Formats: sequence, structure tokens, C-alpha cells
Amino acid sequence: MPLGERTGDRSDSRYCGVETEFSDDMPRLLSFNINGGFDFVVADLMDPGYRPSLRSDDDIKSGALPVAGSDLILSPSEWSSRVVGKISSWIDLDTDDAVLRRDSETTLKQQITWASHLSLQACLLPAPRSMSCVNYARCVNQILQGINSMQLWLRIPLKKPDDDDAMDNLLVEVGEQVDSWEIWNLFRLLCEHHSQLSIALDILSSLPSINSLGRWFGEPVRAAIINADSFLTNARGFPCLSKRHQKLVTAFFKHSVQIVISGRPTHELPIGSTESGNQRHPLRLYLDYIGFLYQRLDPLPEQERYELGYRDFLQSPLQPLMDNLEAQTYETFERDTVKYIQYKRAICKVLMDRIPDEKVSVETTVLMVVGAGRGPLIRASLQAAEETGRKLDIYAVEKNPNAVVTLHSLLKLEGWENAVTIVSSDMRCWDAPVKADILVSELLGSFGDNELSPECLDGAQRFLKPDGVSIPSSYTSFLQPITASKLYNDVKLHKDLVHFETAYVVKLHNVARLAPCQPVFTFTHPDYSAQKTKQRYSKLEFDIPSDTGSALVHGFAGYFDATLYKDVHLSIEPTMATPNMFSWFPIFFPLKEPVCVRPGSPLEVHIWRCCGSAKVWYEWCVTSPYSSPIHNSDGRSYWGKSNAQRKITTCHTELGKVLGLPRYVLISR
Amino acid sequence: MPLGERTGDRSDSRYCGVETEFSDDMPRLLSFNINGGFDFVVADLMDPGYRPSLRSDDDIKSGALPVAGSDLILSPSEWSSRVVGKISSWIDLDTDDAVLRRDSETTLKQQITWASHLSLQACLLPAPRSMSCVNYARCVNQILQGINSMQLWLRIPLKKPDDDDAMDNLLVEVGEQVDSWEIWNLFRLLCEHHSQLSIALDILSSLPSINSLGRWFGEPVRAAIINADSFLTNARGFPCLSKRHQKLVTAFFKHSVQIVISGRPTHELPIGSTESGNQRHPLRLYLDYIGFLYQRLDPLPEQERYELGYRDFLQSPLQPLMDNLEAQTYETFERDTVKYIQYKRAICKVLMDRIPDEKVSVETTVLMVVGAGRGPLIRASLQAAEETGRKLDIYAVEKNPNAVVTLHSLLKLEGWENAVTIVSSDMRCWDAPVKADILVSELLGSFGDNELSPECLDGAQRFLKPDGVSIPSSYTSFLQPITASKLYNDVKLHKDLVHFETAYVVKLHNVARLAPCQPVFTFTHPDYSAQKTKQRYSKLEFDIPSDTGSALVHGFAGYFDATLYKDVHLSIEPTMATPNMFSWFPIFFPLKEPVCVRPGSPLEVHIWRCCGSAKVWYEWCVTSPYSSPIHNSDGRSYWGKSNAQRKITTCHTELGKVLGLPRYVLISR
Repeated sequence: MPLGERTGDRSDSRYCGVETEFSDDMPRLLSFNINGGFDFVVADLMDPGYRPSLRSDDDIKSGALPVAGSDLILSPSEWSSRVVGKISSWIDLDTDDAVLRRDSETTLKQQITWASHLSLQACLLPAPRSMSCVNYARCVNQILQGINSMQLWLRIPLKKPDDDDAMDNLLVEVGEQVDSWEIWNLFRLLCEHHSQLSIALDILSSLPSINSLGRWFGEPVRAAIINADSFLTNARGFPCLSKRHQKLVTAFFKHSVQIVISGRPTHELPIGSTESGNQRHPLRLYLDYIGFLYQRLDPLPEQERYELGYRDFLQSPLQPLMDNLEAQTYETFERDTVKYIQYKRAICKVLMDRIPDEKVSVETTVLMVVGAGRGPLIRASLQAAEETGRKLDIYAVEKNPNAVVTLHSLLKLEGWENAVTIVSSDMRCWDAPVKADILVSELLGSFGDNELSPECLDGAQRFLKPDGVSIPSSYTSFLQPITASKLYNDVKLHKDLVHFETAYVVKLHNVARLAPCQPVFTFTHPDYSAQKTKQRYSKLEFDIPSDTGSALVHGFAGYFDATLYKDVHLSIEPTMATPNMFSWFPIFFPLKEPVCVRPGSPLEVHIWRCCGSAKVWYEWCVTSPYSSPIHNSDGRSYWGKSNAQRKITTCHTELGKVLGLPRYVLISR
Repeated sequence: MPLGERTGDRSDSRYCGVETEFSDDMPRLLSFNINGGFDFVVADLMDPGYRPSLRSDDDIKSGALPVAGSDLILSPSEWSSRVVGKISSWIDLDTDDAVLRRDSETTLKQQITWASHLSLQACLLPAPRSMSCVNYARCVNQILQGINSMQLWLRIPLKKPDDDDAMDNLLVEVGEQVDSWEIWNLFRLLCEHHSQLSIALDILSSLPSINSLGRWFGEPVRAAIINADSFLTNARGFPCLSKRHQKLVTAFFKHSVQIVISGRPTHELPIGSTESGNQRHPLRLYLDYIGFLYQRLDPLPEQERYELGYRDFLQSPLQPLMDNLEAQTYETFERDTVKYIQYKRAICKVLMDRIPDEKVSVETTVLMVVGAGRGPLIRASLQAAEETGRKLDIYAVEKNPNAVVTLHSLLKLEGWENAVTIVSSDMRCWDAPVKADILVSELLGSFGDNELSPECLDGAQRFLKPDGVSIPSSYTSFLQPITASKLYNDVKLHKDLVHFETAYVVKLHNVARLAPCQPVFTFTHPDYSAQKTKQRYSKLEFDIPSDTGSALVHGFAGYFDATLYKDVHLSIEPTMATPNMFSWFPIFFPLKEPVCVRPGSPLEVHIWRCCGSAKVWYEWCVTSPYSSPIHNSDGRSYWGKSNAQRKITTCHTELGKVLGLPRYVLISR
């Protein structure tokens, strides 16, 4: 039965498994463990004493392999939902003993074939014995070519030698000391990042550093196997985990990693605590403790529940559903009250700065909303006027005729007719009757300038008085290297170059953030400089903390921080993110070939914002530790139109499509 | 006019160019240099004083760029065959000076556009100033996306700091000292190995080590620019080159690299040597010296002339022309007399060993030719019998009914009826009336076992007496890492995985062999061992000589060495190749992503020969300095059939196709 109920949580981590010894009575084995409270077993599929080369002639004649009972002894649904097949741990495909090597390959293939026949969801592969596991990887890779939907969980002990142990951190392997991530990385590179190859981490009694652990959350970890040995004993004699282990298990729960209990119990059931006459499962105390940790989790906040379906889901710039969702998109965005409160605060500050108290009754401030949509910025502006007691004359410029319909009815409904002039026009054609004190817009994308806010506001600044103010007054994009194996595999699925040269909007969840963000491009408005250009080039050097160990960079997460006015910001950059604002997910720039970064060698990245006569695009590349190709050269795969046909409305509709980036679109999956 | 005539040589290296200063009178510039003996000029296309940001308003109004005359001043064919455009050398795309950077990008694009308009065949790009050339590469890469067939020659000075200069050979850049290959490599990786990006090497007065120079012969070097400064003076006061320079220039001639003379003359024409009244070209003495080196070349041997068309030409395993060429293929192979002389020598030695002189008249040796084809091995066997005075009873087993026709007429023609029995049969069905003393076959492919000789001979050894001998008695394959940018680009052209997971037969020419060959798989016949398997796994570690510098490995060249009997070999392994034997070109195993190997880090390669129930295939990967995926997993892209449908004839026909490897096929290009 599940570990507990957590509102909204439907992830696999509610289920807990147990690793068992081989038994040729699988039904009894299963019922014992299910009755003992576990949800599934990780069980040997074949007698571990079996060796193909040692079979007697009789065995060979009968043709039957020594499996744990025929497929008929369990129902198909029991096999698939209750049993993870365990491959015999004696196999060694990289030994010098040719007979053992051949036996190992034969056995591995026989057991996987058997597991496929049973329609198991996953098999657990024994841990590679060292970095010399190339033949093992070759054999597993062959199997992956022909496999059904079954997952192969490669067992990997969670260990990394301390930097002190490793005299020289250029050495991966120091005697027996090896960073087990390196083994995983070698294995998965050889298997070409196959999406059915995943990880079962063996949790040992001591844990590596936080940074080192962090790497695994970007990797396809499906299970964490905790041996009874790794538990401590609490004051009342019950098993418990160290604080660091507890934190790790909690993180596993949050990342859909299933816990598997393993080994022999090292705690005895306290006297008198046995229930009735039933035999209790010897590992029940450990299961109960894991259940306790699960139940102790905070409930999932509403916003996160709402966003569950978007986790690690690449929003394609070619999303065809977008066009039918415009009203609903407005709806979604307008619900982000935090964002409009920030706008209101910024407008208040500008009004207070420009109109001294003594002039409140004589001066009227001209405010233009560029891309008024269905009116949220008008509302924020009017609220600011009311709060500060300043008078406003608002022009709401909107190109989208559908939104203009809404605006007109809103004006009537709210009684805003005297304060607001609706301009149903393309701003490029509009001949403004007055110059504005304040230009308000919400044209920012997840990466700041990616929805062409710089181009739009540069055109709009002709409406502004020489001392006029733009809200936002500036914005900066940020970049950060991440491990994101799921995202990488989802991009790779398309089997083309275009998808690797496209940036995606995505709610990042199963990713490892490998280094702090760095600023990339900044735009300031208005910009009256002579040699102004909207082209940008930035070279970033990231240092991954050395106790992380090596890590694989699948691409870069992008964010923005915008200064609306003075100290009023909108931000999705993790360290300064505006709380409870949900209009933007991060952006993801993938790399065609993930880059392995070793401790001590910096990661050097170049990114360009390029402007052609009719389009705007990004190019990016890595030049250290080794060079990637330049992605999206000449905007061949991914760009935004900046030519005369461009429409300026709100960021949610036409402009949202300019760089093809829906920031937040309700799509059914 | 060309440097000279060399029989059979039709390569571009016959033509010599000259680098000139800017002139706005292009016709005069060209005729002066052509009359001076040069074949083409490398000339500025635009006034080097031009800066886009410094143009006067008048210039901008007129819209005309300061180019060296309009397109009409030369004929289209003169523009395209006589002029290589030189991009202004002042451009600097990686300077911190934003105005200069923008001017550079504008100018570069304007000049390339102009060169395209003129249909020039190539433009010379100025040398990158340092490893900080990423923005330059980005801009060139953009240009490459939209270019016509024009080549861009990136100017690269040929220099590499000595190991002594570089205190630490892990450091690529020591102050100003940088291995210019590193700059090229960075640039081409960023430009994704674009096939229109090539190299013009600046030859300086001192040269790097031989190993370091060797790398460039696998790179797309189109021109070598020799400055007059780099010439020495001979005893008679004329310019000449150092011995090492001479060798290098000779190697350039052989690799189709064009020489360009550059700079101001530093030698004066000896008094009295001026011809008539004509003004001699100031660089004429240098040109004459280069012509002298060209004319001194040995004529191309006949065999090489014959193979010219095959140089660096990947023979595709899907070559559809093959099927119509069988008789011609026999013809071609039978011409390889060296090969059959070796077979004859081997048979002689076996006969002498098995039949002592005193038994010559009483004993008859049974010899079976497995895959007799049109009879060359029968002829060699009979010659051996005659030379040694031993008696032979020959069975010629041949599956191909067309070849059997030829065999029968050959027997009549040569009067071999008494000595030879033709068996028109598939050897698997044949019930041999006697057991053989000697089994002779020619089933080897370029990589030894790749045409399934092991499988064939394993089946045939049942015909052999317990002490019988197989010719060949063993064979070993060899592998060697190579730089081969042309081959890599040709494979890449297919834009699929299959072609990167296929081995090709190819006459290697423009390649750099980076390390000595190492043995891979060995097969011995007959093989009576109990646990015998035809699967193989080999792990190789190559050390590239440290004075080479870094190098890019595009894949591996494969060869074989076969022991026919005792000391009689057939080999294409370069250090022990059988002289004048031409039946086999090497094999080439490509890598999906070329691997950059730095000095001091070994290159670790794994290769497997895998046998399934119905097919045989290779898998390969690199694991150091970093890991590649395993190529051709499960034989998904490339394999040979080993099932019941396999036919055994001669290696040139059916078996030649088994692994899809024509070793030498006459194809028109």
C-alpha cells in the first residue's frame, strides 16, 4: 500500500519496494512482502547458482531455464506492477575469464528476454564493478536496441571520494576510490543516452557532499535502494535515518524516485510490540520509518499542484494549440495578481517622483499602455492614480481588435470613460496627439528580451517626452548550466537539428543547477544613445563548485530580472524571484552534444543576440572545456520576426508568438 | 602557366598564385602577374582604407563600395579562375572596440557578398589573431550558411611552440605562443566542420616538427602561402628553400595544395640576367624555384596513376554498380600477380615440408581450393607443384556457375584435366571423397576477417586431414587513428546515423596517420580448440607522439596481415605491406563525433566482432580522452550475413558483398 496520502501527489514515489532473495515460489514471496506492507518486490528472476557453461546435458535437453516459476504463476498485472526483475549479480562482462564473460553475456540476455516475456516494467542491472565496464555497456546497449518498453535500472552506489582522499582531483579513479557518477556517465555515453537506461542508487551509510548529491537530480534516477545497514537507531530503539539522509529521502520523494528497502534487519522489534499472531515483515520497521518521512512532507502548495502537469514538459515553439487559446491565455495571465501589484507600485513611485504634492491638482500625467490587452495594466495604473491622488490621462494602445472589444465594455462597466482613451491601432501607424510621461508595457519573455521587447519599446519611445519614463526601465537576462537528462532526451526524440537549436519554455523540475546564474544581456529604456544597437554578445565563464565532481551539462536555463522602476522588480531569476508570481517559466537552451565538465575546468559559454533585416535570433556555443558547434547559426532553426509585419499587442498574443515562445499556455497533455 | 608537366598529374598543385597589394586597376594587376608567370592572384577586393563607420555622407548616398573595379572589368571566367578574393586584413571581430567590431562584421559580409557576385572560387580570410576568435567564427559560420559554392580559405600561420618553449604541455597558449592548429580546430568545430571552410597555411622561415606538420595532411589545406622572407639564398645568389621546406613543398604538391608566393622580393635579379626589354615580375625567381621543385618530382608510378580516381573516395557498401562488374572484378584481381606469387611460394613451402624428396614419386598431395573463381589459385598451385616436383591432386570448389564455365574451358586450354577436379557445388553440401592436405582460399577482406573468412574456413576445415594445413594459416587485423576531414565530411553528407556506423573501403590519401598501427583480431586455421568462438573484443590504447601537438581523430584506418604459411605473408599494414600488391585498399571506421586528442592523453578504443545467429558485425567506441557512443550497436547499421543463405565463391563476388565491402571496384565517378 502507498506510503501515505499527500494532496495532489500522484507520483511513483508513494510506492515503496523491497529487495528480496531468490525464491522459486514467487507467489509466496510476493504475498509475504505485499502483506508486509510493501508495494513491489525487486526479485531475482533466475536461480543465482545458474551458469550456462555448467549446465548438465539433461538441463540442456529439457531446454528450461531455472527461472522463478513460469509466467502463469502470477497474473499479468501482478508481474508488471508488483515485480521488478533483478539480474543475477554474479555476472561480470569485463573479466579476463573468457568463460565467465561468455556466461555473463548469455545469462544477461536470457534474463532480460524472460523479463520482457513477463512484461515487467523494469529490471535492475547489477552495479558495474569499475570504470572497466565497456563490454558490459556494449551488451546492455545491444539489449536496448531491441527492447520493448521495459526500463533498465543500472545499480549505482552513491559514493564519491572526498577531495582529500583524491590527492589529485584530475584523477577520476584513486585505487578503489571512484566517483560513481563517472561510471554512470561512461555507461550512458556509451549507450548514447538511451531513454530506457536509468538509475537505481544504492544509498550507503555515509553521503557525499550536497553539491555532489545535487547532480543526481538532473539524471534519470528511478529508485533509491536503502540498505538496513544505513539506518541509525533512535532513543527508543527504532530505526531512523541521519538528518542528511532524511533530507535526501525527502528530495527523492519530490523527484518521483521510489524507495526500495534492502538487506537484513539490524533492529529487533521491541518486545511486546508484535501485533496479534501474524508474522510481521522483518523489514517492517524500516518501511514504517520511510512512511513516516513521506507523511511528514508539507502538502503540495496549490500553485505547484496546478503546475504539476508542466514539470519538465518542453513547450514547443510550434505549439499549434496556441491560436485557439487567446481569451483563455488573457484569463490566465490576468490572474497573476502579484505581477500587476508590482506594476501598480512602480507607477505609484513614478507619479510621486514626477508630481510633487503641491501640484497634484494642477498637473495631469499622460500614461500610455503599449499593448493594453484586456486592461490589467489600465487597472493597475488607475489604482496607482487613486492611491497617490495624482491625475492620469491614459491612452490604451491595442492592435488586437478582439481585445479592443473587451476594453470598450470594461470602460463602460468600470466607469473609466473619462480617464482612458482606447486607441485601436497599430502603434506604428498611430499619430499620438500628445507625448507621454510614462510608457507602460508588459512585453517581456522568460529570457527578458526574447519576445522582442527591445525592438517594440525602441519604436514606442517616440511617444515619450524627453524626460519620460518607461516601465520597465531595464531588464537583464540570466543563464545557468544545468543537467537535464529528461529534457535532453525529449529534444533528441525529434531526431533533427532544428529542435536542438531552439529554446523552450519549461517548468524545470528534474534538473540539477550546476552553478549560480550569470547576467547575459541588459536593455534600458528609453535609449537615446547614438550608436545604439539591439545586437548583443556575451561570454560567460561558469565555475562549477569543485566538490560537485564532474557533471554533464545538457544545456542552459534562462531567466530574467526586470527593473520596472527604481527598486520595483519583476524577476524569475531563482535567487531574487518575485514571490508567488507565475506568469513565466524559465527558458531552456539545449546543447546538441552534452558537455562533460570536470572539476577545476571552467565552462565557457558564448551567446549572441543577432538582428537581421527581418528577424531576431540567438546563437550559442560552448568553447571550454571543449568546443561545441555554434547553435542556430544565422537563425536557421529558431527566430523571431522583426519586420514590418510585426504586430504589437499584448505579450500574450501576437508578441508571444514572435519568438514562438508561449510562456504559459494551457495545453492538455 | 602551370609549374610543369607531370605525367598523370591533374591536381591543382600545378598552379601557382601570387598575393598582391590592393589595386583599383584589376585588369592591369592581373595581366602583370599572369605575364609574370603566375596562374592566379590573391588580391584585395576592396580598398583596405575603407571603414563603414567613417564613410562620408556622399559615399553613403552614392551607395557604391570602394571595390577594385566593377564586375565588368574582367570576364566571368577570369574572375573565377584567376582571382582569389582577399578579405581586408584589418578586420577584427573579437576586439573590445565595439565600433571596430561592427565595422569588421559589416566589411566581412560586404566583401564576401561581392566575391559571390563575382563568382570567385575562393576568398582568403585573415588569420584569427588568437584563440579569442569565437565571434569571428560565429560570423564566418553565418556566412557559410548562405554561401554559394565558394570556398573560404582561413589563413593560418604554420607554427607550433616547441615543447621546450611551453613549460607545461597541458597549456595550449603560452603568452603569444600558441599552436596554430588549435586555432584552426576551434574555428572549425564552431563552424561544425563546414566543407567550404578550408585552410591557407602561411609558411614561415622555421618549421615545426615532422609529426606536427603531418597533422595538416588530414586537414582541408587548399593553399600554402610562402613569403619571400622564408627563402634562403643559394651559392649563386638565387632564392632557394631549406631541405625541410623543400620536403614540405613536395608533400604539398602530392596533396593538391596550391602554392602562393607572397611578400616583397629579398633577392635581386643577378646583373645581366634580365631578358630583353620586358619588365620581369619581381617575384619571378621565387616562382621559378617552385617550378623547379615541381619539375623535380618523380613521375607518378603507373599503379598510382591508375588509383588516382580512388583517392579518398569512400566505396559505399551500397554500391549498386557492383553487380554488373563481376567478370571485370575477376579480371582486376587476377592482374595482381604479386598476390598469387605469394600463394605459390606458400604452397611450395608446404609441399617441401610435407613431402620429403625421397617420397616425391610415391606420394600425392590433395589440395582443395575453396572458392576457385576463374582459377588463379589453381594456376599458382600447379606452378608450385612443378617447381617443387611434388604431385598434386587438386579439387577446385566453386559455387558461382558463371565462374565454373570459365574453369572448365581453362582446364581444356591449359591441359590441366588430369590434375584438377572441378566441383561445382556449395561447399556446405559437398561430400568430399577424400580429405585434404592443403586447403587454399582467398577470402580475406581489407580488415582480414571482415568478409567472413573465419566462418567460411571453420566450415571447410572438415575437409582437412588432422595434420592438414590451411593457406592462409592465420591473419590479424590492424587499426590506426587518423585525421581525415574529407572522409568525415563525405560520411556526414548523408545526414544519417547509418553512414557513421559503416566501415568503408578507401584509398587513403589526404589523411594524417597519428600513431603506429596496433593488432586487433587474430584468427588461426584450422582451429580445433574446444571453446572456440569467432567473437572478438579488443581494447587498444594509442599514444600519439607528444611533439605532434593536439590532433583530431575522425576515425580509424584498418588493415590486415595474413600469414599464408610460415614466413610467407600477404599484408597491407603500412610498415610490412607486400610491395606492389594492389588487391586491397584500407578500410575506414568513422566516428560520429571526431575526438580531439591532446598531448599526453592516450586514445583508448574498443572494438568488437559480434556474431549473432544470422549475422556478423563490428561495434566500436572511444572511451578516452572522452567517451563516444558505441557505434553500430547490435549491427543496426552494418553487418554481414552469416546464415544459411551465404554463398562461398571467391572473395571478389558474393563474399565481397557479404560485409558489403568491395575491395576494389572499377567505378566511374
